[in-house]
Order: sequence, then C-alpha cells, then structure tokens
Amino acid sequence: MNHQEFLDILRQRKFTFASAESCTGGNIAHVLTSISGASDVVKGGVVSYCNEVKNHVLGVSQDDLDRFTAVSEPVALQMAIGVLNLLNVDLAVSTTGVAGPGGGTPQSPVGTVWIGIALRHPDKSVSAQAFRCHFSGSRLQVIEQATDKALQLALSLITNNL
Amino acid sequence: MNHQEFLDILRQRKFTFASAESCTGGNIAHVLTSISGASDVVKGGVVSYCNEVKNHVLGVSQDDLDRFTAVSEPVALQMAIGVLNLLNVDLAVSTTGVAGPGGGTPQSPVGTVWIGIALRHPDKSVSAQAFRCHFSGSRLQVIEQATDKALQLALSLITNNL
Repeated sequence: MNHQEFLDILRQRKFTFASAESCTGGNIAHVLTSISGASDVVKGGVVSYCNEVKNHVLGVSQDDLDRFTAVSEPVALQMAIGVLNLLNVDLAVSTTGVAGPGGGTPQSPVGTVWIGIALRHPDKSVSAQAFRCHFSGSRLQVIEQATDKALQLALSLITNNL
Repeated sequence: MNHQEFLDILRQRKFTFASAESCTGGNIAHVLTSISGASDVVKGGVVSYCNEVKNHVLGVSQDDLDRFTAVSEPVALQMAIGVLNLLNVDLAVSTTGVAGPGGGTPQSPVGTVWIGIALRHPDKSVSAQAFRCHFSGSRLQVIEQATDKALQLALSLITNNL
C-alpha cells in the first residue's frame, strides 16, 4: 500500500478522511499523517480502544457490543459511520479485531480483524460495508497488515472496484 | 522512553490514559497500543488534525484557536483536558505543533510542539500543564521525539518530579 498515493487520490477527488481505530490503535492515522501535506485530506480520527469509547464517543450500540462482541460486523460498521459523522468527513475506515498474542476466542482467533468503510455520497446519503479479514504474524505485523488492508479497501470502494 | 515501563507504572497506579494528538497524528496511541496488554491502561484517544475537530470534538475554544493559533499553550491545555473528560480517564496528553517540513511561522518554526498534560486527582479535580518544546530533524523524527517527550512529561508529572 502506497500511503502517498492514497492521499493523492483522495485529494484529487476532494475527499476528507477519518479513522475509527480499535485494534490498529492509531496506526492508520499515524501512517497517513507521517506524510507531509496530509492535512488537506485527513481531518483526524478516534482511537476507541475500549468499548466505553466505542459506545460513548462513536455511538456504537451497547446492545450490539454485548450481543456480538466488539470484534463483529455491526460494530465495525457503526464505528465507521460514527466517525464519519462525528468528524464530518466523506470517507472513514474502522478496525476492530484481535492483534494478539492474547485475546483470541474460538469465534475470533488472534489475527481476526473486521474492517468497516463508510462513504458519504454526493447526495449526502451514507453507505457502509464491512469485511472480515485474517492476518498472521506478530502483534505489530497484524496491526500493519490491517492498516494497509483498510486503506486498500477504502480506495477500492471509492474507485468503484468493489 | 520505555513505553512498556510507562504502561507498567500507570497500571500499578490504576491510571487510565488517553491522548489528544495533532502533530503526532496518532503515534502516541500507536506506540502504546503496539504493546500487548495496553488495554488495561489505554482507553483510546482523539486525533484532532484540523481545528474543526479540536473545537467540535475536544471542546477547544474557537476564539483561542483564532487568537493564539492551534500551536499554543491554551490550545494544548484545552486539548488535554478535553480528551480527559471525553474519554473519562485519569491522565491525558496532547500535542499540537509543526512537524514540518512546511507550515513553520516566525512565532512557531518547524519543530515547535506544545505538549499538554491533564491529570484527574483523587478528589476528581483536574489540573493541567503545558510545555513548549522544540525538536530537530525530519518530519518523522519530530513526531517520534514529541511522542516520547509527551510520555516522559506525563510520567514525571504523576511521579511528582514536576
């Protein structure tokens, strides 16, 4: 994933961007804002590392957190839509998963990451999709792979390849 | 700065932590959440890369942003206090500065970073301090130095060396 290219394509389309990060813990915002000129595109993000922040700040349903756990499709979708609205951007990504080495469950083993993408259309309507992914390697490798996959999926969505 | 030690000391004291990041762009959250077990301490953070997010999400005064610019003591203080309250934590740090290579001004040349630290006391009162720092090097080196300095200052504050 070329992070500069990601920013360039969003800039060309006049898209603003935000992230809602659980398992990637701020790395999506970090890799983009490490690039000079990112402020044209990146408005910011929320690191919602605990469920309380997912609920109180991003508006994720407490019932869904209880029922489906944080590592689930509805939570990924609501995180992406929540940060899209909170930060008033055109495109948002979310990540919620198990970076490891602990924390895995039979339902969501270590390396499982749900990625959400929310998009505001020209008519102001919002659509969102979520993708279940699995990554291997160390904790940092899972974080870095999830970061790049989230940006790839977002780019695919806006360039109509999804 | 030993990030594991930072988490260990906060864990021993049962402190929860959040960050409000402008120029460090999520790197403070990233370096801490790269460590397994960080979720005991780190509740999350806000990357407020634009002034709108500083104002709307963190509650920084628009008058102060207009009057003092984003790279200023009052903004660093309000970002730290804002995220402390929003995420309901005991200790919060903020960063707002000019990572470069562009964006410098005579008042705030490239490498200038204001770091804010907010602390919730046992009686629930909140105190905050801000520190003007200057770092040299590339954009990424400024980000990394500001990250470590923010954590060092926070640690010094809670261990009563400040």
